[in-house]
Amino acid sequence: MQTTVLKIFCDLKADDETLLLLKRGVAQHEIVSAAKPAPSVLSKSEPDPALADADIAFGQPEAGAVLQAPRLRWLQISSAGYTRYDNAEFRKAALERQLLVTSSSTVYAEPCAEHVLASMLAQSRGLLEALRAGPGADSTTWLRLRNTSTLLRNQRVVILGFGSIARHLVEMLKPFSMEITALRREPKGDEGVSMVTAEHLPQALARADHVVNLLPATSGSVRFVSTALFAAMRQGSAFYNIGRGATVDQDALLAALRSGRPAAAWLDVTEPEPLPPGHPLLDAPQCFITPHIAGGHQNESQNLVRHFVENLRRFLGGAPLRDRVI
Amino acid sequence: MQTTVLKIFCDLKADDETLLLLKRGVAQHEIVSAAKPAPSVLSKSEPDPALADADIAFGQPEAGAVLQAPRLRWLQISSAGYTRYDNAEFRKAALERQLLVTSSSTVYAEPCAEHVLASMLAQSRGLLEALRAGPGADSTTWLRLRNTSTLLRNQRVVILGFGSIARHLVEMLKPFSMEITALRREPKGDEGVSMVTAEHLPQALARADHVVNLLPATSGSVRFVSTALFAAMRQGSAFYNIGRGATVDQDALLAALRSGRPAAAWLDVTEPEPLPPGHPLLDAPQCFITPHIAGGHQNESQNLVRHFVENLRRFLGGAPLRDRVI
Repeated sequence: MQTTVLKIFCDLKADDETLLLLKRGVAQHEIVSAAKPAPSVLSKSEPDPALADADIAFGQPEAGAVLQAPRLRWLQISSAGYTRYDNAEFRKAALERQLLVTSSSTVYAEPCAEHVLASMLAQSRGLLEALRAGPGADSTTWLRLRNTSTLLRNQRVVILGFGSIARHLVEMLKPFSMEITALRREPKGDEGVSMVTAEHLPQALARADHVVNLLPATSGSVRFVSTALFAAMRQGSAFYNIGRGATVDQDALLAALRSGRPAAAWLDVTEPEPLPPGHPLLDAPQCFITPHIAGGHQNESQNLVRHFVENLRRFLGGAPLRDRVI
Repeated sequence: MQTTVLKIFCDLKADDETLLLLKRGVAQHEIVSAAKPAPSVLSKSEPDPALADADIAFGQPEAGAVLQAPRLRWLQISSAGYTRYDNAEFRKAALERQLLVTSSSTVYAEPCAEHVLASMLAQSRGLLEALRAGPGADSTTWLRLRNTSTLLRNQRVVILGFGSIARHLVEMLKPFSMEITALRREPKGDEGVSMVTAEHLPQALARADHVVNLLPATSGSVRFVSTALFAAMRQGSAFYNIGRGATVDQDALLAALRSGRPAAAWLDVTEPEPLPPGHPLLDAPQCFITPHIAGGHQNESQNLVRHFVENLRRFLGGAPLRDRVI
């Protein structure tokens, strides 16, 4: 019996150990490495002629080249976001030619959720200020640090966007008995937390101690977090963005921070990235910016490969793929 | 039927709202406020003649005055630690005259556990370095930040000391499926995690990603975390001290940090407090010091009062008191 050998185009920048893991994972199938791997999972690779022969692609291939690759049946993107492929033209073309598209969101969900919780705890414990004050804090500072830090326990959080990051986060927040409310385009009833519609979101924000934005960038989510939503947040609340920068009206955020509502913003994503020197958010009060690192973690490449290999197993067996986006 | 009115001496520094809460909580019993309240829950109050008439004391009264107060039957200390009262002489005198002594450790357990988790997540996510790098991080720094951060999930933690902070912490770590090992003077079998004896502690430390010291300061725990224990920790691990500074050999810690094992220390307590200017730990590599704020939180005084009132209810009803230490 002859087994079909599939060609798998891969432009993932990976060390030898990771490539070995991939080779073992795909068994008899053939890996065709890109001449120039994508510099990172957040940037696209150069068009590569090897894609033209591929049955499967894994990485960040250029969208136009994907649509022109005649044999391609499945694309697994190595990031969680897929803005580059998320437009009507690509979606239509992919559906017409029955191209499956999956993301790697499962791989990034755990680190992103841990990053959110790290930020929430640093915020509620006043960790940065306590470290700055250090052991020699005078008694006024010391009493203020002690008396202004809060407990996550019994606090309220609103989560915007309910995908795999949110599910991980909800699990991590369980020990704190928080009141969790989430917004989702199409609630499925399996979320396990209170759901809120966009219409009633302002009332939920008015009660929230923490507002966590996990929205992906889609045509419907651009600048979703607007002046009106910031105005609805309560004094002393904190805002976190681990989704995509484009989902926040940054001018509105700047004005909001200057008015102290929310009292702090923790941003792992901005629009653009990086913010240009002199951008006012860089000097905004209580605005803590990390450079889009929430999803990163040791062994990230290996985990991307494991996730791909698991989906390959499903693909070959005709089972539904994980993280399917088209 | 006549009800005995008990005199409750209180030297807690509290605002009007907290005092009202206390007054309501003690019902018909009489509160005698100290002329000079203790400046904080970490410092003793001046000897006060009012203590001599008290049946119950709540706060930080001077140990000698406590033993001389003829009518005193119960002392509730407003801190979690009780070093000031924890010596053979006090213990013997208290037992002889049947003086009950309770602490307020329950009140501080939740904030302390949240502080530990905040530090663990900041450490594993590389949060401080990512914030320092900010949005303009160059690509080398960015890749390093992404690739060196770790996930708590499946990591190993050793907890030294297994009281109420540890129990809260274990609950908070559950969603991360960590391998938790704890050291306790007298394991009771109800800990719900793997226990280790002091004899086998080095082997546990050699496997741990995080070592959390929650030991109280007792005659048996002084400088417990020694050169030998630091030497047993593995490269890349992190050490946290939220117990008492005296339980760590700080010279050994300094040498350990300089050798990179552990790779980082997060200290909320030191010996002495504050560390004197120029103390070498202030400039030690990867040594993050907060000024004994882990137990602090908004509404701390109210929570101390609620805890006292709950114990008063038990005291009056003859039920076992919470956080009994003598």
